[in-house]
Amino acid sequence: MRLKRKDLLDIEDLSRDEIELIMSTAKSFREVSDRDIKKVPTLRGKTIINMFYEPSTRTRTSFEIAAKRMSADAINISVSTSSTVKGETLKDTAKNLEAMNPDCIVIRHASSGGPHMLARYLKCPVINAGDGTHEHPSQALLDLFTVNDAKGRIEGLKVVIAGDIAHSRVARSNIHGFSTMGAEVRVVGPPTMIPVGIERLGCSVVDSLEEAIVGADVVMMLRVQFERLHRPLFPSIREYSLVFGLDTEKLKKAPPDVAILHPGPVNRGVEISPEVADGPYSLILDQVKNGVAVRMALFYLLVGGAKE
Amino acid sequence: MRLKRKDLLDIEDLSRDEIELIMSTAKSFREVSDRDIKKVPTLRGKTIINMFYEPSTRTRTSFEIAAKRMSADAINISVSTSSTVKGETLKDTAKNLEAMNPDCIVIRHASSGGPHMLARYLKCPVINAGDGTHEHPSQALLDLFTVNDAKGRIEGLKVVIAGDIAHSRVARSNIHGFSTMGAEVRVVGPPTMIPVGIERLGCSVVDSLEEAIVGADVVMMLRVQFERLHRPLFPSIREYSLVFGLDTEKLKKAPPDVAILHPGPVNRGVEISPEVADGPYSLILDQVKNGVAVRMALFYLLVGGAKE
Amino acid sequence: MRLKRKDLLDIEDLSRDEIELIMSTAKSFREVSDRDIKKVPTLRGKTIINMFYEPSTRTRTSFEIAAKRMSADAINISVSTSSTVKGETLKDTAKNLEAMNPDCIVIRHASSGGPHMLARYLKCPVINAGDGTHEHPSQALLDLFTVNDAKGRIEGLKVVIAGDIAHSRVARSNIHGFSTMGAEVRVVGPPTMIPVGIERLGCSVVDSLEEAIVGADVVMMLRVQFERLHRPLFPSIREYSLVFGLDTEKLKKAPPDVAILHPGPVNRGVEISPEVADGPYSLILDQVKNGVAVRMALFYLLVGGAKE
Repeated sequence: MRLKRKDLLDIEDLSRDEIELIMSTAKSFREVSDRDIKKVPTLRGKTIINMFYEPSTRTRTSFEIAAKRMSADAINISVSTSSTVKGETLKDTAKNLEAMNPDCIVIRHASSGGPHMLARYLKCPVINAGDGTHEHPSQALLDLFTVNDAKGRIEGLKVVIAGDIAHSRVARSNIHGFSTMGAEVRVVGPPTMIPVGIERLGCSVVDSLEEAIVGADVVMMLRVQFERLHRPLFPSIREYSLVFGLDTEKLKKAPPDVAILHPGPVNRGVEISPEVADGPYSLILDQVKNGVAVRMALFYLLVGGAKE
Repeated sequence: MRLKRKDLLDIEDLSRDEIELIMSTAKSFREVSDRDIKKVPTLRGKTIINMFYEPSTRTRTSFEIAAKRMSADAINISVSTSSTVKGETLKDTAKNLEAMNPDCIVIRHASSGGPHMLARYLKCPVINAGDGTHEHPSQALLDLFTVNDAKGRIEGLKVVIAGDIAHSRVARSNIHGFSTMGAEVRVVGPPTMIPVGIERLGCSVVDSLEEAIVGADVVMMLRVQFERLHRPLFPSIREYSLVFGLDTEKLKKAPPDVAILHPGPVNRGVEISPEVADGPYSLILDQVKNGVAVRMALFYLLVGGAKE
Repeated sequence: MRLKRKDLLDIEDLSRDEIELIMSTAKSFREVSDRDIKKVPTLRGKTIINMFYEPSTRTRTSFEIAAKRMSADAINISVSTSSTVKGETLKDTAKNLEAMNPDCIVIRHASSGGPHMLARYLKCPVINAGDGTHEHPSQALLDLFTVNDAKGRIEGLKVVIAGDIAHSRVARSNIHGFSTMGAEVRVVGPPTMIPVGIERLGCSVVDSLEEAIVGADVVMMLRVQFERLHRPLFPSIREYSLVFGLDTEKLKKAPPDVAILHPGPVNRGVEISPEVADGPYSLILDQVKNGVAVRMALFYLLVGGAKE
């Protein structure tokens, strides 16, 4: 079975059925990474291009490992220093890459909408690996998968997303994803980091983290993206941490089986205390592990298996 | 069949028979990239090193895809930051790489003659992926292949090469290649960009682009390499574009079946207008597609097939 | 057979039996790189991550080629620009990588002890590819292998290590390795580059290079690491070269069958003259060739073969 779409660009577009198809496919691929021989021939002879306009160890590595475990040829392109310097447009770069007959292009771009523009021009599938402050759909899919795996369901869960909602593509994708799957999403963060009208995405806004986590099944802490903050949106890191950082004290307000998520990389002691990040409720490493499985599923559903 | 030479360093050296052998071999490899499973076992267990002393998305990716579709192990080395910093000579770098038993080294180097020096010291085949302002032979071979594919022949064609002839390794390789194959080559560009004595390479010099393209079968527009121009060789980009940029107006002087080539990356609106670059006469994306096939052919002819 | 340890972190830890096991395993892998098809299926479906926090063409390439010739999936991560920028700790980076189920992590780190910290947190094998000024164990193992191969034994040999002993991880690993194998190790260098108490590692200190090489079976010249010298430890390069550089004149003091080693990259005319580096006694390129075999052996012994 395939997704009835060419590209994976955002979660906003996905129906509940599509998300369920991706999650169930990922489940069947997850055990590949636990085998002694972590390799299936599904994408042998396929070419997958990872084109990263922003540096990323984790997401690029996850896509690359997913591709290689499916026997695809993975080509990494880090675009900060080459064609961009030479003044080529994104469209031309894309058309040129497509001329080399890739089967899928994974793209991370600093500008919101970059992958969408690419997808319009290309016949091959495009996967958005994060675009500006817009969406990071494969991250939200692995978060959904991880929560579903831990809780047995998503429908009806109370999900808190805490931090810099305004600048977080992870937050946007997850608000869409959890809403679509029937969860109740609350966002919380400094007022300067909550966009006006965010409720239209299908979430409610809560003022304090302590209040938000009462009754929460899932608390997703966002990373403070120091490298993206051109001007400070809060008085000091210490103050941010005191008010919006999750520590064992604040966590006492949550139910005993609350699940803690974080997209990584973690700023220990800023948005999350080490005790919570490494504690028994943390699913942070499950998210990473499941990320490979979800990306294998996306390749399978968009690029297709050998016997299709 | 193999080339009766160890290396591919420049087009100037190649005979007509050799160019024809490379083109016919490339033709047989081109369909591999159109298959569902884009992979042949020809170079299984061979190690190909791509050593790039200058950044290049396109050429490096093309060589890497070619190697992987032939089942070789491709190793990328980007040398700007490592050994060069440590003060090692190119010769020592090469001898050390050779000690790891590669089957072929592809090298791009900012200095003209870098690949030639390397080739003298190494027993394994060396492919020049562009050296300074000297030659870029795999680019010219894919240009020849593309023209031959579109026109059915090269002999007797009128070929215009327009732009910064003096600093273009693409121009030098193509002047040699098209002359050797019996085409008539005209070069055109600002006087500051036409080297004195260029006629000895086997081409004529024309003053104006309009004049040059009258009767032309092929017009190859060169990229204005802003990143290489340490001092401006023309008054302004706008003036360059007006006089030496190819647009639909100027193109009216050309015969109706003229073929437009450009080695990329394209500066849209500078040396070529978007209408021409994307127009019906443009073979720019064919060039890219054929580049993978030509590089597969070079690997096949220099490194050899499994059953040799 | 496997090493009875999870990681390869330093030579200091290794017993004579372990070093002999690695050397004999490397011997059996060396011929793979001389074959026409340089590939064995031993590590098919295994994922090997090369994580380099310092740039390195040579060591990274050697590990990558070793992994690919054993059919493993090799993932390269160059960490200077990505996660470190984002403020993640080494421990978190490691735990996150492990969550993707790699079978081995090769790490080079600018801080001594970095790989050891990593190894404590990870269940998968960790190979130290050089940590600060501490150790570079795979380098010492390939040096031991090369000397054993050339001389037929290590026991009882007189081995000189010359240069910046204080800042050289290669020197420390080799002092441990050659001592353990029963060689007599002498170190020599400018007084500012000989750490106080170095004799406790199992070597003697000699004042002059001429004196040190009398009767030597092996002379290992260390690289002057200009990029690491924040303040000069000797008056001038010329003076260093005159006193501590190995040239044909000084080499006359050595026995006729002396073996010359250098870990590379070579500063020609500084610590070693071109005549000596390229001369008949030089094993420098054998070291590089054997490096691939030793790293294949390490992968085999730590990660294990398919039929284990």
